Amino acid sequence: MTLSGELKGTVVITGKQGIEELHGTSFYGRPRGETLELSLAESAYLIYMKKITVKCEGEELDFERFFIRASNIVKNFELFYIVYKDLRGRGYYVQPSDIGFRVYPRGGRPGRGPAEFLVFVTSERIPLMLSELREHLDNSDNKKKRLILAIVDEESDITHYEAKKLNPSGTSVLKPGKLNSVVTLLEDRCMVWEPEESNMLHKEGFFGKPMDEGHLQLSLVESSYLLNRGIMEIEKRDHEKLDFTEFSEIATRIESDFMIKYKVYEKLRTSGLVPKTGFKFGTHFRVYKSFDSISHSDYLVHAISHDHVFSLQQVSRAVRLANSVKKEMIYAVVSDSIDFIVIGRVRL
Amino acid sequence: MTLSGELKGTVVITGKQGIEELHGTSFYGRPRGETLELSLAESAYLIYMKKITVKCEGEELDFERFFIRASNIVKNFELFYIVYKDLRGRGYYVQPSDIGFRVYPRGGRPGRGPAEFLVFVTSERIPLMLSELREHLDNSDNKKKRLILAIVDEESDITHYEAKKLNPSGTSVLKPGKLNSVVTLLEDRCMVWEPEESNMLHKEGFFGKPMDEGHLQLSLVESSYLLNRGIMEIEKRDHEKLDFTEFSEIATRIESDFMIKYKVYEKLRTSGLVPKTGFKFGTHFRVYKSFDSISHSDYLVHAISHDHVFSLQQVSRAVRLANSVKKEMIYAVVSDSIDFIVIGRVRL
Repeated sequence: MTLSGELKGTVVITGKQGIEELHGTSFYGRPRGETLELSLAESAYLIYMKKITVKCEGEELDFERFFIRASNIVKNFELFYIVYKDLRGRGYYVQPSDIGFRVYPRGGRPGRGPAEFLVFVTSERIPLMLSELREHLDNSDNKKKRLILAIVDEESDITHYEAKKLNPSGTSVLKPGKLNSVVTLLEDRCMVWEPEESNMLHKEGFFGKPMDEGHLQLSLVESSYLLNRGIMEIEKRDHEKLDFTEFSEIATRIESDFMIKYKVYEKLRTSGLVPKTGFKFGTHFRVYKSFDSISHSDYLVHAISHDHVFSLQQVSRAVRLANSVKKEMIYAVVSDSIDFIVIGRVRL
Repeated sequence: MTLSGELKGTVVITGKQGIEELHGTSFYGRPRGETLELSLAESAYLIYMKKITVKCEGEELDFERFFIRASNIVKNFELFYIVYKDLRGRGYYVQPSDIGFRVYPRGGRPGRGPAEFLVFVTSERIPLMLSELREHLDNSDNKKKRLILAIVDEESDITHYEAKKLNPSGTSVLKPGKLNSVVTLLEDRCMVWEPEESNMLHKEGFFGKPMDEGHLQLSLVESSYLLNRGIMEIEKRDHEKLDFTEFSEIATRIESDFMIKYKVYEKLRTSGLVPKTGFKFGTHFRVYKSFDSISHSDYLVHAISHDHVFSLQQVSRAVRLANSVKKEMIYAVVSDSIDFIVIGRVRL
């Protein structure tokens, strides 16, 4: 026998029987005194499962009419429904939260241990502000939950990503000596002309790329890092010396995001990591935990500013590519400090 | 014994001996009467190989001084040098061209058969205008050569891509009948409520995604395509009917690039292909050649407008991702017609 409920505002209310039959056995809804309160997603799902019927002002709403009504009440209701149905369908107990859902671990349920995940529901088309993501991260940290982004694509497939804060560190200790020769800034890279110093820089810190035997090319970030550390001096082709500020200005004209890239590069280096260009992977850096094992890099790191807005399509591509080459995709947020957020695909 | 040459303008000139020793055996340079003309990249390479010395106004230029001089004459000279050295180092015969180099096939050489490749040299940081790429494509088509993009990253690694025109086509013949029920536009997707028609659309053309048994969600492009073909009618939640123009306007508010996406979707469908969302891959579409073999898609297709400017970092990420899942990365250029350009990584 199906239970009957009444749509009131943004929830559906059933009588006492709902508490026993829907909540007691399967943890749908939240008991409120003698009644059970169901969310719109729960209600649509229970109508579809033929477990309840819902009336509004005396008129019964079938699935189609309830769904259209709900989607008029809650923006993007269909996304919430799709994600809810998927989670329930795979045996998870799910309760609503302000960003989407609280989801209990396998074997867990409301009243027996805490929820494990906070699931943030969104569409691939909705840009995600970094500030919003950080708020969700802080919130789930406070609640000791894992933050999951459930992203619904235009054909209603769901992809789950987990976002976490991270403090990456490595074991590389850097000890290149000061260069005696002078390095030249060419168009958008620098050249070390002196063979022994070229070799030293490459061997002692995995800096640059040997152009041939004896000549080492350094990238702009590498060059400015070594300049800033006092390890080398840089001059232009007309032999005019450049200090760190002048060099940074030139580099910023070449790549507009140079300064945030540089700050992340410096932070990674001082954390014992070895960053090299991530061009082949479409990110700023690929990063090695040490340069004893320089054959496989561990992270792909992309520098973003604190007002960054993610395109979820780009995040999707970046994470998928990183995982396909067995690396973690990390966003480095540059403000007064550098914070790292790793985003990875998870299968719930 | 090393030959001597003289830097004159943008070339180095050697005497008759150069024709025999450099051109006759190894196809460096171009004979001009009694002299041999060498490009700046050839000359820098030959200085490095200790095969020539170069003077300018009586003063001998060592490798460092010649290199700095050359990079003052030719913008991004270092890129040309890096690519030239790499190609020669791997046994290819190379001649200069206006966009970079003409490269002879393995076993080929100047004077014995034509060059196989036109190599366009650029840096990862230089945005590539679609119009420029198309010019190079037309040019290499006219010359019956393969167009290679040699992209030098910030650490001087070279990645080679081949760009080609393409006319993708498939074998899918579409025959869904007209729907009797009306489809509802929700927030950013449409819903077919009638179970039999839901199944028919999904089975007869691989449209949409079943939300559950009996309800089918259609994406915006799918919906507008079926609307435009007269296969179904769409109404808003308040039951107001939408024609193609009205629907397109709403869809464009939801995704600003809707119209170019739609045009490419339509072109792919009428070419016998089955496009579905490419969200998981960070592109507009993944495309199947038929829906008999719907398990593996063949192409990733991204719609771009005729005034598009490529970020090579993004191209790199897209191509790498496509290849890692055994698909071809195709850019669909939307102007009066739709042209397809496939970009793939090649190992020369």
